[in-house]
Amino acid sequence: MKQLLLIGIGPGNPRQITVEAIDALNRAQVFFVLDKGAVKDELLQLRKNILEHYIRQPGFRVVQVDDPRRAEAASDYVGAVHDWHQQRAALYARLLETELAEGECGAFLLWGEPTLYDSTLRILDLVQARGVAFELEVIPGISSVQALAARHRIPLNRIGEPLTVLPGRRLPEQAQIDNLVVMLDGGCAFADLDDPALHIYWGAYLGSADEILISGPLQQVKALILEQRAQARARKGWIMDTYLLRRPL
Amino acid sequence: MKQLLLIGIGPGNPRQITVEAIDALNRAQVFFVLDKGAVKDELLQLRKNILEHYIRQPGFRVVQVDDPRRAEAASDYVGAVHDWHQQRAALYARLLETELAEGECGAFLLWGEPTLYDSTLRILDLVQARGVAFELEVIPGISSVQALAARHRIPLNRIGEPLTVLPGRRLPEQAQIDNLVVMLDGGCAFADLDDPALHIYWGAYLGSADEILISGPLQQVKALILEQRAQARARKGWIMDTYLLRRPL
Repeated sequence: MKQLLLIGIGPGNPRQITVEAIDALNRAQVFFVLDKGAVKDELLQLRKNILEHYIRQPGFRVVQVDDPRRAEAASDYVGAVHDWHQQRAALYARLLETELAEGECGAFLLWGEPTLYDSTLRILDLVQARGVAFELEVIPGISSVQALAARHRIPLNRIGEPLTVLPGRRLPEQAQIDNLVVMLDGGCAFADLDDPALHIYWGAYLGSADEILISGPLQQVKALILEQRAQARARKGWIMDTYLLRRPL
Repeated sequence: MKQLLLIGIGPGNPRQITVEAIDALNRAQVFFVLDKGAVKDELLQLRKNILEHYIRQPGFRVVQVDDPRRAEAASDYVGAVHDWHQQRAALYARLLETELAEGECGAFLLWGEPTLYDSTLRILDLVQARGVAFELEVIPGISSVQALAARHRIPLNRIGEPLTVLPGRRLPEQAQIDNLVVMLDGGCAFADLDDPALHIYWGAYLGSADEILISGPLQQVKALILEQRAQARARKGWIMDTYLLRRPL
């Protein structure tokens, strides 16, 4: 049987990796690395640094592939994502058949937490549905949501209250905003909120040397976040950011 | 200045701790351990094992105190919690004044993630409001929510959908249940849901040798979970469990 590990390696700070994940890195012979666009070179190098730092025995292989691009402006968002997942499933199936021998252990290194807004687990379901057999193990990792709360030193939830995590494109339809964490908000949906009561806790490149933290009343710090975000993105070619919105009591 | 670290040590599996948390354990001279009731002896021992395993220089001190008990049956839940936090703030203020010298570094070892359904951060705000000065750092940890998803090998969210995390007492008032993680549900609120479409992914003592995992259509596995939960609780004297509810597409 082939073995496959989905390893959460944290939000970007190489110290925010668990001992369990380091054990898992040392079990794998092959690492699959899929990136796309502007993030590719820098994030690939960061992953290689993690491997070199934590793996005790040399001899592992890194298989790097270009990730298929998703149709960005599709009107049917979920449909477009499903199509993209099928393309990736075909690619992953081929990788697992050609690059991983029976009895070998392969691994995907995933930023943050493998079960939170990451599609790899879903795509591997599709790969299994295509008849490719493997044993799967998931190793949790620190998500950017946790790094955000830790760096701002704020609780994610208030006493007895729910916490909601959602992607940026779902923010406009939220009737009530409180204890709300937004991920994957390339369009800066927060900028369209005009509620004067909201506070924002925003962070980019969390845990890295480029980390930026801004917090305060949303209407007061909105312009600053947009400006800093645009500058950082232009400078590095990519950005990863997340934020929490809260209504003070 | 006194330094204080809130260290997330993961859900119970000593390998699910980060390198950053191990670094933090090695910076502290004093560890504050607060437990109560039946969990006390076993969880205290687990924490001591973590300290002995990961700390490279002996000489640290463990200050163990009985946590004040919260009034269980209060009609005003949030009010009762606030009162309890004030009692704990008085206790923590005294500990920081008497057990931690200027320039020393103290630490709280917290199960799971320090910013998710844990009151320590809120209580330390109250301690600072009482005039006790310290520098605070928060170290994220793997939460039981992540351990649950990893062990069941399921994504926490579906494509583009929100994820909600809430305490058991807020479950009955949820109009729509989907991608919902329930924590702190001592009253087994899931047992009162009669929706035939719901699936449950349940786990107890996640990451430990006593781990129990049950999943399936809620109406089919509800009785089994109640039975296993009651047996495990009777055997160990305490239980920590969490679950995800989802409506299949």
